[in-house]
Amino acid sequence: MNIDTQTKFCGVIGNPVGHSLSPAIHNAAFQELGINYVYLAWQVEAIGDALKGLRALGNFRGASVTIPHKVAAIPFLDHVEETAQRIGAINTIVSNNGTLTGHNTDATGALRALREGGVDLKGQSVTLIGSGGAARAIACALVAESSLTKLTLLGIDDRERTSLAKELRSQAASAVEDFHLDESSLRKVLPDTHVLIHSTPVGMSPKVDVSCVPASLLHRALTVMDIVYNPLETQLLKDAKAVGCKTIPGLEMFLHQAAAQFELWTNKKAPVDTMRGVLESHFR
Amino acid sequence: MNIDTQTKFCGVIGNPVGHSLSPAIHNAAFQELGINYVYLAWQVEAIGDALKGLRALGNFRGASVTIPHKVAAIPFLDHVEETAQRIGAINTIVSNNGTLTGHNTDATGALRALREGGVDLKGQSVTLIGSGGAARAIACALVAESSLTKLTLLGIDDRERTSLAKELRSQAASAVEDFHLDESSLRKVLPDTHVLIHSTPVGMSPKVDVSCVPASLLHRALTVMDIVYNPLETQLLKDAKAVGCKTIPGLEMFLHQAAAQFELWTNKKAPVDTMRGVLESHFR
Repeated sequence: MNIDTQTKFCGVIGNPVGHSLSPAIHNAAFQELGINYVYLAWQVEAIGDALKGLRALGNFRGASVTIPHKVAAIPFLDHVEETAQRIGAINTIVSNNGTLTGHNTDATGALRALREGGVDLKGQSVTLIGSGGAARAIACALVAESSLTKLTLLGIDDRERTSLAKELRSQAASAVEDFHLDESSLRKVLPDTHVLIHSTPVGMSPKVDVSCVPASLLHRALTVMDIVYNPLETQLLKDAKAVGCKTIPGLEMFLHQAAAQFELWTNKKAPVDTMRGVLESHFR
Repeated sequence: MNIDTQTKFCGVIGNPVGHSLSPAIHNAAFQELGINYVYLAWQVEAIGDALKGLRALGNFRGASVTIPHKVAAIPFLDHVEETAQRIGAINTIVSNNGTLTGHNTDATGALRALREGGVDLKGQSVTLIGSGGAARAIACALVAESSLTKLTLLGIDDRERTSLAKELRSQAASAVEDFHLDESSLRKVLPDTHVLIHSTPVGMSPKVDVSCVPASLLHRALTVMDIVYNPLETQLLKDAKAVGCKTIPGLEMFLHQAAAQFELWTNKKAPVDTMRGVLESHFR
């Protein structure tokens, strides 16, 4: 990497950022394509100051935005792309000569992970477990950019889930149902589900042997995607594989949200295999 | 260079910065010592916003500050080191966890260039040509940190020069004289001068064949330093060499101000030979 006065820079804004894999994958991708960019990591408390400052620094090209700034960053941007607006959160900033636009590639990343995994969502019935930030991003992308037959939300926070369902119904062409997440609702919903997306922290390291879905309720016609990527294969994915389901690991969603960011900053196709290799090497 | 979440970053703040050599020399120095730092280039108009923002970004370690922000940056810092305060301008910022301190290594760089060039200023009579920002920094450093017998200022801007001389007299143990710069004052002053420092833009590329000092007034007992470093050997230095003077090229001052910055940011001795090599390769 040969840094000079023309080198553009990006970085991840969050708190903490010490364990972020984004510098590793984005710098590897820049190098793979021979692009004169670098990617740094910034622990930030004062998000408004940080964005005002980045806007004033020449060569700033953009940022990944993570917890706790995904919503808080919005008032400091010049524009917010439509899906990100509906989600109410961003994970990406693109700077065009100091004009900042927010995007949400968590949403597009989930769709890309499914598509790259060979899943055509058209006419499918999708069940989404969870109603937090990630679930919200995925649900908004699903109803905005695919033509599902039905989206079913299952979650334990009834207030959050019903509110999200209500919002989605006002935007969606497809049917939107929602139920409290428990064994009974899973038993009712899963037989007619084509694609099951798990979007809660359950199963994340170190509590790796738990799953929101009893293994006995899985059936081989399901495609199962988990957003948890540490461990690479969650208990849910193990159980799903055991009954013969197609599975899409959380790493793919993380990978494709990063690839979408890379493309927004560079206007070049992301070297997805290089990026996946860096991610996998970190978990193995 | 392997950038990760621990990588600290520095950069040059100026306008323009497109021709700055600082990214090349500092990145080479970081790499030579295997230090996990990178150095970028930032064209900046809103200096206050930029500094407020850099302060808010984790891993920010410091900046070089150049035209037009050397004075304007000061109100946005937490502390200004003593010599920089007297000069009224900074060229370096060090961030300690978001607390910003200003330094002026143009001053210390000039002294280091002389010292490394084998010049002991103690008891010497120094003549300084110029009274602008660079001359001011050098003059303040000379009276503060060395024990000259006499400092003589020669300049064409009488108001600026007399005001600087007045200030210096209030701080200096050594005698301070000042005269309008012309052939007559040079003829009077140079015979008793040990060290002549040229600190104006005269002789800078593309007008490389001019000098403030008629060659006939130079004598071989003089040490001559020029702050102009493009070309590497100015007309003044050529003339001085021709009569047998010891000469110190402007590159040495530029090099040593950068080395002093490097040491402030890293607390390690700068790899001066590596940095000089990068600079020379840019001019050859």
